[in-house]
Amino acid sequence: MACPYGYGAAEPTTTSVIDESKVQFETSAHEEDHANGQEGVNKVELKMGETYGDYLQLGKLLSCQRLQSTEGGHTVNDEHLFIVIHQAYELWFKQIIFDIDIVRGLLNNCVVDETKTLRIVSGLERTVRILKLLADQMHILETMSPLDFVEFRKFLTPASGFQSLQFRLLENKLGVLPERRIRYNAQHYKKVFEHSAELDALEKSETEPSLLRLMESWLERTPGLKGPNGKEEEGFWSQYEQAVNRYLDDLKKDAENPEHPDPVRDQLIAEYHKTSDSFRSILDVEKHNQQRKYMDRVLSHEAMKGALMIYFYREMPRFSQPYQILTYLMDIDSLFTKWRYNHVMLVQRMLGSKQGTGGSSGFLYLRSTVSDKYKVFLDLFNLSTWLIPRQYIPQLSPRMVKTLSEHSNHLSGGGSATEGSEDEEACSIVRT
Amino acid sequence: MACPYGYGAAEPTTTSVIDESKVQFETSAHEEDHANGQEGVNKVELKMGETYGDYLQLGKLLSCQRLQSTEGGHTVNDEHLFIVIHQAYELWFKQIIFDIDIVRGLLNNCVVDETKTLRIVSGLERTVRILKLLADQMHILETMSPLDFVEFRKFLTPASGFQSLQFRLLENKLGVLPERRIRYNAQHYKKVFEHSAELDALEKSETEPSLLRLMESWLERTPGLKGPNGKEEEGFWSQYEQAVNRYLDDLKKDAENPEHPDPVRDQLIAEYHKTSDSFRSILDVEKHNQQRKYMDRVLSHEAMKGALMIYFYREMPRFSQPYQILTYLMDIDSLFTKWRYNHVMLVQRMLGSKQGTGGSSGFLYLRSTVSDKYKVFLDLFNLSTWLIPRQYIPQLSPRMVKTLSEHSNHLSGGGSATEGSEDEEACSIVRT
Amino acid sequence: MACPYGYGAAEPTTTSVIDESKVQFETSAHEEDHANGQEGVNKVELKMGETYGDYLQLGKLLSCQRLQSTEGGHTVNDEHLFIVIHQAYELWFKQIIFDIDIVRGLLNNCVVDETKTLRIVSGLERTVRILKLLADQMHILETMSPLDFVEFRKFLTPASGFQSLQFRLLENKLGVLPERRIRYNAQHYKKVFEHSAELDALEKSETEPSLLRLMESWLERTPGLKGPNGKEEEGFWSQYEQAVNRYLDDLKKDAENPEHPDPVRDQLIAEYHKTSDSFRSILDVEKHNQQRKYMDRVLSHEAMKGALMIYFYREMPRFSQPYQILTYLMDIDSLFTKWRYNHVMLVQRMLGSKQGTGGSSGFLYLRSTVSDKYKVFLDLFNLSTWLIPRQYIPQLSPRMVKTLSEHSNHLSGGGSATEGSEDEEACSIVRT
Amino acid sequence: MACPYGYGAAEPTTTSVIDESKVQFETSAHEEDHANGQEGVNKVELKMGETYGDYLQLGKLLSCQRLQSTEGGHTVNDEHLFIVIHQAYELWFKQIIFDIDIVRGLLNNCVVDETKTLRIVSGLERTVRILKLLADQMHILETMSPLDFVEFRKFLTPASGFQSLQFRLLENKLGVLPERRIRYNAQHYKKVFEHSAELDALEKSETEPSLLRLMESWLERTPGLKGPNGKEEEGFWSQYEQAVNRYLDDLKKDAENPEHPDPVRDQLIAEYHKTSDSFRSILDVEKHNQQRKYMDRVLSHEAMKGALMIYFYREMPRFSQPYQILTYLMDIDSLFTKWRYNHVMLVQRMLGSKQGTGGSSGFLYLRSTVSDKYKVFLDLFNLSTWLIPRQYIPQLSPRMVKTLSEHSNHLSGGGSATEGSEDEEACSIVRT
Repeated sequence: MACPYGYGAAEPTTTSVIDESKVQFETSAHEEDHANGQEGVNKVELKMGETYGDYLQLGKLLSCQRLQSTEGGHTVNDEHLFIVIHQAYELWFKQIIFDIDIVRGLLNNCVVDETKTLRIVSGLERTVRILKLLADQMHILETMSPLDFVEFRKFLTPASGFQSLQFRLLENKLGVLPERRIRYNAQHYKKVFEHSAELDALEKSETEPSLLRLMESWLERTPGLKGPNGKEEEGFWSQYEQAVNRYLDDLKKDAENPEHPDPVRDQLIAEYHKTSDSFRSILDVEKHNQQRKYMDRVLSHEAMKGALMIYFYREMPRFSQPYQILTYLMDIDSLFTKWRYNHVMLVQRMLGSKQGTGGSSGFLYLRSTVSDKYKVFLDLFNLSTWLIPRQYIPQLSPRMVKTLSEHSNHLSGGGSATEGSEDEEACSIVRT
Repeated sequence: MACPYGYGAAEPTTTSVIDESKVQFETSAHEEDHANGQEGVNKVELKMGETYGDYLQLGKLLSCQRLQSTEGGHTVNDEHLFIVIHQAYELWFKQIIFDIDIVRGLLNNCVVDETKTLRIVSGLERTVRILKLLADQMHILETMSPLDFVEFRKFLTPASGFQSLQFRLLENKLGVLPERRIRYNAQHYKKVFEHSAELDALEKSETEPSLLRLMESWLERTPGLKGPNGKEEEGFWSQYEQAVNRYLDDLKKDAENPEHPDPVRDQLIAEYHKTSDSFRSILDVEKHNQQRKYMDRVLSHEAMKGALMIYFYREMPRFSQPYQILTYLMDIDSLFTKWRYNHVMLVQRMLGSKQGTGGSSGFLYLRSTVSDKYKVFLDLFNLSTWLIPRQYIPQLSPRMVKTLSEHSNHLSGGGSATEGSEDEEACSIVRT
Repeated sequence: MACPYGYGAAEPTTTSVIDESKVQFETSAHEEDHANGQEGVNKVELKMGETYGDYLQLGKLLSCQRLQSTEGGHTVNDEHLFIVIHQAYELWFKQIIFDIDIVRGLLNNCVVDETKTLRIVSGLERTVRILKLLADQMHILETMSPLDFVEFRKFLTPASGFQSLQFRLLENKLGVLPERRIRYNAQHYKKVFEHSAELDALEKSETEPSLLRLMESWLERTPGLKGPNGKEEEGFWSQYEQAVNRYLDDLKKDAENPEHPDPVRDQLIAEYHKTSDSFRSILDVEKHNQQRKYMDRVLSHEAMKGALMIYFYREMPRFSQPYQILTYLMDIDSLFTKWRYNHVMLVQRMLGSKQGTGGSSGFLYLRSTVSDKYKVFLDLFNLSTWLIPRQYIPQLSPRMVKTLSEHSNHLSGGGSATEGSEDEEACSIVRT
Repeated sequence: MACPYGYGAAEPTTTSVIDESKVQFETSAHEEDHANGQEGVNKVELKMGETYGDYLQLGKLLSCQRLQSTEGGHTVNDEHLFIVIHQAYELWFKQIIFDIDIVRGLLNNCVVDETKTLRIVSGLERTVRILKLLADQMHILETMSPLDFVEFRKFLTPASGFQSLQFRLLENKLGVLPERRIRYNAQHYKKVFEHSAELDALEKSETEPSLLRLMESWLERTPGLKGPNGKEEEGFWSQYEQAVNRYLDDLKKDAENPEHPDPVRDQLIAEYHKTSDSFRSILDVEKHNQQRKYMDRVLSHEAMKGALMIYFYREMPRFSQPYQILTYLMDIDSLFTKWRYNHVMLVQRMLGSKQGTGGSSGFLYLRSTVSDKYKVFLDLFNLSTWLIPRQYIPQLSPRMVKTLSEHSNHLSGGGSATEGSEDEEACSIVRT
C-alpha cells in the first residue's frame, strides 16, 4: 500500500478536506429516484409552507400497505402488522446503509483526518443503536398467531425475505464474505434478484471496498506500529514480541517448578505449550496467514498488530476513539447475530419445521446463519487471546507518548511538521 | 343503558358473530387510497409471482426520503435520520390505529362475546409492545448533533410534529379529552390542519366512541355487579360497602384506643378521617360525580365499580383476562407518557429553550403534555386507593363463583340458559 | 396416570385448597438459614420500628463485596463491578427459583384448580421479565476492559461460574435433561460441588418433578382431548386426524393436477410426501416415541395432543390462559438462550480463546450450551409444524364449546356436577 | 482559582500520577466493615482454593432475604420479590457510588491528566448503562398484585425507601442541591437517619465536592477559552460574542425587511427581541449570575463558556471525549428522572392515593421529585439555546487547532513545554 504511515501522516492535500456531501458511496438502487426532477417543484412548494405530512411524504408512505388477504377476499388482521414491521425494517436498513456509506467514505482515504474520527465513531454508534432497536422490534411480531400467519402466508409465495435487496447490500458493505455465505437450497444468494438495477447494485457492493477492508487498511496505518524511519525493531510489534517471550519464559519456569507434584507439573507444562502455541499463531506471520487461508481469520497481519496496539494503549488520547471504534464494530456483529437469532426463533414459532416452498426448511437455513461465518469482525472478538498481564506490557517512551497524544489533521498548518517528525525522527516505544 | 347486564348476557343475535373484516372503524384519511381500483391489477401480478419488494412496495416506500438540505444545496447527513425516524413513527402509528380500531370494533357491541376477549387482550398487548419500541426509538435521535439539527431545521419551518394527523387521531381514538388538551400558542390543535379530509377524520375521531368510552360501557356490564334480578343489595357493590364500613370501624376503634399516647391517638384519628373521606368519595355516587365535573375522574360510577370488582376477584376465570386488559390500558398510558417525556428531553437537548416559529417555546408546550391530563385511564391508576385488606374482602357465594367461572359466548347453544339464570336467579356474592 | 381427565375433573378434596405458604418446594441450601432462631429477635425489633436498612439487611448485604485484588495489594476497580453483577445475578436466580417453585407447587397436583391458573401465568410472566433483565444486564459487564479483567482474574482461580449452585438448580427445576448436558472437560457438572448440602440440593432437584414434567402431566389432562366417557373417537385427536387426512388429500390432488408442467408436478409431489411424513410423525404414536428415544422430542404423545388442541382453540375461554402459559414457557427458553449467548460473547471479548485453568476453553464449552439441547420446551417451538389451514380445523360442538367455557374450581359446590357431566355425558367436538 | 489554565496546564508533579487505589472517596458507611480483620483469614482460604460461592459470599448474601409476612405467620409470596428487587437496587447503588467516586477522584485534581479522560468517560458510560437497567428493573415490580402488596405492607411500617442511605449519598455526590430538595412532610431528608455513622456519611457527601462542582471546575479550565497570555480578547468567548452579534444583526435586518407585510414584520421583530434577550442572558455575566441566584442556572459563567466551546468544536480531538462526558452527564440526569418516574407510576398503581404513615401522600411527594429541580446538569440541557448557525461559528486559527489537537499528559516530558506555549504564546481562535 502506497499510503504513508500513521493515521494521517500524509502531506496536506486539498482532498483531505472531505466534502461531506460527496463522501457517501451511493446507497442503493432505490435512492436513484431521489435525484430526479420532481424535487425542484417541491422546493418551491416548501418555500410556500410545506407541512409535516408533505415533508415526510406521508400520503405516499402510508399508502404502501396493501394487504393481500384483503385482496384475496378476507382480511387477516395480522397481515397489516406483517407488512408494517417489514417496512419499518427496510426504512431502517436504508438508514444504516446511509450511515455505513458515510463511514466508508470517511475511511476511503489513505489519509484519515483525525477531526473526522468523531464522525466515524458517531456513525457506528448510531448504527449500533438502530440495530439494538431492530433486534427488539422482532418481539412485536411474536404477537402474531401462528394460525393467522398460516392464513395469509399462502398469498406471499414466492415472496421471501431472502429477496431483501437492502439486507444483502448491507451484508456486502459491512464485509460478509461471499465464500462464507451459506447456500439456501444450493442457490447463490443473488439468484432471487432479477432486475438488472438490483444485480448491478449487488455487484457494486461486492467490488467496492467493504467496511471490513477499509478498517483493515486503517488499522494497518496505526501510528506507532513501526519505529522511527520505519524501523521495525523500535516499533510496537518488536517490543510486544519480546514482552510475550518474557511472559512465556516466566510461565515455563513456573510450570517446571520442581516443587509441584508431578501431575500438576505435567498439566502446567501442557498448558504452557498451548499458550505458547496460541501466541506463536499471532507472532508468526506465516501461521497467521495460514489461518486466513482456512478463513479462521480474515484481517491482515499488519491490521491485527494495529488492533492489538490499540487494545494495549487505549488510554492514550489518540487511541481512545479507535478503541471505541473497535468496540462498536463488535457490537454491530453481536447485534446482527442477535437479530438473526431472534428471527430464527420467530420463524420456528410461526412455522415449526414446515417446508419452505423451495423444498427445504427456511428455518434450518436461517439457523445456520446465526454463526461465526457471518461475523464480519470475528478477529476483533479474539484479540483478548493475546493480551498479557500488565507488568509485561512495554512502557511507552516519551517520544511515543508524544506521538500518541498529538493528533494529525488537515487544518493545522504546523501539523505536517509534527507528523514529519513522526516518520523521520523516532517513536521508539521503550523509555530510553 | 339498553344493554342487558353481564358481559354477554344478551339473547344470541346474529350480530354477535363479529365479522372480523368489518369490525374495524375506518382508520385514517390515508387509508382510503387503499380501497381503490389499482389493487385489482396488483392481484393479478401477484398470481404471476410477486416478489418481496413488490409486496412491500419498497420502490415507493424507499423513495419517500427527500432531504430538504440536499435541495437547499448542501446535504446535512442527520436530516436523513430525521426523516427516517419520523416515517418509522408514522408507520407504527398506523399500526397502532389499526389495532385500536379492531379492539374498539370488538367492544362496540352491547354484547361482547367472550371468545373475543383474547383478541382484545392481544390487540392491547401488541400496542403495548409497539409503544415500548417507540419510546426506545427516541434514543436513536439523540445521536443527532444539535449543531447539525440547527443546520437543516431552517428548511422545515413551518412543518411541525403538531401536524401529525395520525398522532391526533390516535389521541382521540384512545380518549384524550378535548377539554383537557393544553393549547399551544393559544391555538386549537385542529388549527394546523387544512385539508377537509384531515378535518373530517379528526371530527369523526372525536365523535365516535373512544376506547375510553367503550371500556367504560364494558366495565359497567361487569357480571356480578348486581345481584339476581338486578337486586342491588345482593350484588358486589353492596357487599363491598358493608366491608368498607367494617374496615373503617376497626380502623376507628384502633385509633381511639385509650392506650395510645395522646399525640399518637390524635394522628391516628386524623388519618382515619382522611381514609374515611377517601372511601366516601367512591362509595357516594354524588361525590364521585362531583370529581368528574372537575375532571379529576372520568369514568362513570358504575364503571368504577366494575373495575374494582375485577381488581378484587381477578383470580376468577372470567376476570383474569379483564384484569389483564386493565393492566394493558395503564401500560398504554404509561408508555405514551414516557414517549412524550423522551420527546421533551430530546427537544430540550436539540433546541434548548429556543423559540418556536410561532413565538413560544415548543419545549414548554411539550413538557406540559407530560401530565396526568393526557392520561386517558387515570382512574385505573387510582383503583388501589380503595383496596381493603384481604380479611375484609367479601367471600364469593357458590352461585357467584359459578357466574364468574362460566363464560358466555354466542357459540354455545346452551349459553343463553346459563346466562338467563344469571339474570333471573341470583348471584349473591355472600356465601349463604 | 391415576388422575381423572380434565384440568380439574376430580372430586373436590380438601387438598385442592392449596395453602400458598406450603406449595413451594424448598428452594435451596441457602434458604435453610432463613428459618433459624434469630428471626424471633428481629420480629420484636420490628415492632419497635424497623428501618429500611434493617428490613433489607443492608449492613450484611453491602459487606459481601470483598475484592481479592485489594487483598492482593492493588485494587482493580473493575473487580467491584464483577462482584456486584454476579451477586445481582444470584439474587435474581433466587427469585426465579422461588417463583418456579411456586408454579411447580401449584401444578404438582393431579387437580389443578383453575382459579390458580392466573397465579401460574403471573409466576411465569414474572420469570420472563426477570430473564429479560438478566439478559440485558450482561451488557454492563462489557464496560470492563479485558486488560483489567486479566489483572484480577488470576485471583479468582479456581472459582468459576460453573460452581453456581443456583444456576444448576434452576436448570434442573426447569427440566434440563442430565443426558443432554454437555460435559465440560469431560466432567460431570456436579463434580465441582463439594458440600453435601449442595449435592443434596442438586440430587433433590434432579429427582423432584421438573417444570417440564409437571407441564407434561397438565397438558395430558387438557379437557376435551377425549370424547364423552373417554371415547377416543369423539375427542379432539380423532377429529384432528381426519382433518389432517382431508388436508393431505387435497394437497395430493393439487400436486397431481395434470395441468402442471412435469417438473412442477414432480416437485409438488415431493413436497406433498415430505409434508405427509411430517404429519405422520405426530399422528403415529410409535413414530413420535421413536423421536423421543433419540431425544429429538421430549414430551409424551398425550401432552403434544393437549398442546396442539390449545393452539387450535386458544380463543376458547378455558384455553386462553393455557395458551399464554405455552407462550411464556417458550419465552423462558428463548431468554435463557439469549442469556447464554450474551454470556458467550462477553467471555469471548474478555478472554478470546484463552485456555481455562482446566486446560480447555471455557468459551467453547459455553458456546456449545447455546443450543437446542438446553431448550427445555423445544417441542413447543415445533408445534406450528402441525397447524392446518383454518378451513380444515374441526369445528367445536356445542357441548365442547360449553366444556371449554366453564372452568372448574374447588370453590364451586356445583362444580363437581358440571365436571361430572364432562366425563359422563359427552364433549364430542363435532357439531352434531 | 489557583489552577493554571488548560485541562492539564500544570507543572508535572508527582501527585499528577494518580494512584488508582487511592483516588476514590470513601464510599459509604457500609464499606467500612470491609477493611476489617476477617479478610486476612479469607485470603488464606482463597489460596487454598476459593470457590465461586465463597468468592461472592453467597452464603451470607442469600441469607439476607427475611420475609416479615412469614414471621407474621402467613407468607405473602410477593414480599420475596419486594425484598430481592430492593436489594438488587442497593447493590447497584453501591456500584454507582463506587464509579462516581472514582470519577470524582480523577477530577479532583487541578490537573486532569488527559490519559485519564477515557477512564472518566468509561466510568460515566458504565453508570449510564446501570441506570438504564435500573429504570427497566422497575417493571418487574409491576407484576406484584396491589392486593398482595397491601397484605405485607403493614409489616413494613415505618420502614420506607426514604431511608435509603445510599440513594441520598448518591444524590449528594452527583450534586443535588440541598436547597432545591422538596420536603416530605415538611421534614428535612436527613431526619429519617439516626445512626451517627449514617449522618456522618451524609454530612461528608454534602461537604465534599460533588460531581457537579468538579465538572464545573474542569469546564472552567477548558483549553482555548482564553487567548495567549490569558488575553480574553483573543480567546473563544470574545470571538463567540462577536459572532453572536453578527448573527443577531442579520436576524434584525431580516426582520425589519420592508417587504414583509406589517404583521409578519411585527412578529419577526418580536422574535428577534426574544432571541436577543436569550443570548444576552448568557453573554452578560451579570444576567447569568442573577439566574443562578434564582437557581435557574447552577454552573459558573466560566464553566458555561467551556461547555459551549466544547459543543461548537466537538470534532477537535481534544474535545471529542469531553463532548461525550457532557452527553453522559445528561444521560445520567435523564435516566434518574426516568427511574423516579417509573417509581412514581408503580407507587400509584400499588397504592393509589393512599395515605402514607406520616399523614401525607408518598405518591405526591415522589411525583414532585420528577422535576427539573432534581436535574443536576440542567444547564447542559439548555446549551443548545445558544448555538448559532454554522456559517457564523468562528473558525479556528492554526494555533488553536494545534492546541486542540495535542493532549497534555504527565507522561510526556515535553508536555510541559507544549502546554507552556499554550499559556505564553497564543491561541487566538481566529485564523490570522
